Amino acid sequence: MGSVGLGRVLEPAGVLPQAAWRLDASPEIGPDEVRIRVRRLNLDAASYRQLAEKHAGDGAAIRAEVCEIVATRGKMHNPVTGSGGMLIGVVDEVGPGSPLPVKPGDLVATLVSLTLTPLRITDGLAGWDGLSEQVPAEGTAILFGRSIVGVLPDDLPPELALAVYDVCGAPALTDRVIRGYGRPVTVAVLGGAGKSGSLTLAAARAAGARTRAVVVSAAERDALLAAGLADEIAIADARDPVAVAAAVGEPADITVVCVDVPGCEHGAILATAPGGTVIFFSMATSFPAAALGAEGLAADVTMLIGNGYVPGHAEFAVGLLRRVPEVRALFEARIAGD
Amino acid sequence: MGSVGLGRVLEPAGVLPQAAWRLDASPEIGPDEVRIRVRRLNLDAASYRQLAEKHAGDGAAIRAEVCEIVATRGKMHNPVTGSGGMLIGVVDEVGPGSPLPVKPGDLVATLVSLTLTPLRITDGLAGWDGLSEQVPAEGTAILFGRSIVGVLPDDLPPELALAVYDVCGAPALTDRVIRGYGRPVTVAVLGGAGKSGSLTLAAARAAGARTRAVVVSAAERDALLAAGLADEIAIADARDPVAVAAAVGEPADITVVCVDVPGCEHGAILATAPGGTVIFFSMATSFPAAALGAEGLAADVTMLIGNGYVPGHAEFAVGLLRRVPEVRALFEARIAGD
Repeated sequence: MGSVGLGRVLEPAGVLPQAAWRLDASPEIGPDEVRIRVRRLNLDAASYRQLAEKHAGDGAAIRAEVCEIVATRGKMHNPVTGSGGMLIGVVDEVGPGSPLPVKPGDLVATLVSLTLTPLRITDGLAGWDGLSEQVPAEGTAILFGRSIVGVLPDDLPPELALAVYDVCGAPALTDRVIRGYGRPVTVAVLGGAGKSGSLTLAAARAAGARTRAVVVSAAERDALLAAGLADEIAIADARDPVAVAAAVGEPADITVVCVDVPGCEHGAILATAPGGTVIFFSMATSFPAAALGAEGLAADVTMLIGNGYVPGHAEFAVGLLRRVPEVRALFEARIAGD
Repeated sequence: MGSVGLGRVLEPAGVLPQAAWRLDASPEIGPDEVRIRVRRLNLDAASYRQLAEKHAGDGAAIRAEVCEIVATRGKMHNPVTGSGGMLIGVVDEVGPGSPLPVKPGDLVATLVSLTLTPLRITDGLAGWDGLSEQVPAEGTAILFGRSIVGVLPDDLPPELALAVYDVCGAPALTDRVIRGYGRPVTVAVLGGAGKSGSLTLAAARAAGARTRAVVVSAAERDALLAAGLADEIAIADARDPVAVAAAVGEPADITVVCVDVPGCEHGAILATAPGGTVIFFSMATSFPAAALGAEGLAADVTMLIGNGYVPGHAEFAVGLLRRVPEVRALFEARIAGD
């Protein structure tokens, strides 16, 4: 059990690193650990949004709070949203017992959350203006034996690969759920113009589904129209259940929530046909709101907690990006806009 | 859309009743509504536990806070836990457009959460000592057109039927998931000696599964041993992931979480085999802890948000209670102990 990082937990004792309040982030590695020299953090969208709203967009204050969280907790685990993000860096040292397929010098992305990754920042994030989720950083991070790490592909810029890896669970799980139905299905994606949303639309279409996207603005609709990833596109506020149901129209077999704001549970449930499936891929999802909402609506739908891990998910998502230039263009525009 | 109760939402506008901060609980009914004369509330276990801990078991203070919540919000929706409970009462008036199969004078239980049920209390809960989840109450409650209500069976005491209805989603969904595998499976139930846990064990066995229970104490183990519902029983703290995994042993195909305390996500994930399913039936479940925990453990498991509604769930659960006297005995002991 050492391989899940129990030895790095400082408090409370006995929990796993993700549930811990504080981790030991010291750079000396154990026999099955790997140390990474950090280059860049990619903060989870819900976490960055919370910090930006709290500090009214004051970059210096946002930067100071991220430094404070990491110093206090030994990891970038936003105590309000409960979410983290990912990082890229260079493998520095590999313990003799590590099962991970990496060697010193590899440029890698961690595919496990920052909420369970021991992290030490040594530059005070001096290279970051606090105004974007992409955080240049110096320091060290630790990977355990039971972890997931991806060597960055040679043919993609690191920022692009990192952005894809960050959301690669959504397209892979959507693909699996579609194939489980064994018949033609309709997939509605709330937040279809975003990173996880556009990859999910591409995955749904590749799996033979009819696709509907719900987006928040005319600008997003136009971007998605140009990309041609959705058979139908409607504009609605994902937090307004009546508007979402109207936008989706005929209820979908599968609804995927890719909108990182609270309050999207009921619209997703209303938009889904009896016997259908809702996949929640937003960290802003409320468990009781989903459970009680479906019950209160007498909705016979299967509700999945979006698991960020599906075997082969990183390769699957990178493959979609390579095969569908429109998805790559959406990602590049998002990264340029960050 | 009027049938989901939008007209009862006072603030914020545009959300469904479950997401609302405040409902209009006035007793005059609309054309498709039903008014119930309340007899008893059954508070959700997580909600009652939070109130009891906050007030250190002071019954008068617990009672005052429940009255205060209902007066403020127009519903019994615990703002900390986000959960509610159910109620029993007598049908008072049925709107001419109501699709619900009830008539005035029927003794019924609401099978939708109190978090979305307009509720007015008129007796200050004078008949309740604040020391149990079972709350004698006078007042009125409103049901919408799209709702779920169960007429109480003649052959069971109302308290017993209410306790069964309160948790009837868990055995029905577990049955469906077991049958979906189409092969013999092992089902582990965390909190197997409780109400939802014991019904879930009975459902799993009836569906042909091998059953394992994890309970918190020797007293619970002995009660469950006497009932004979589990093939194996182990004692562990469900919040301790390493202990839970050791207690379950060979990972289960399906793990059902029926423990109403926070922090059970990681143990459930560790106890489940690759390709398996975790069903979260506790309102204390944290969405990010589950999603990030599975990712952090590289766990290829399907995670379900326990939907309190499965068609026929109330009849299914009452049927189990009638057919398995040991389950009935466990329920009766729990109710007597409340």
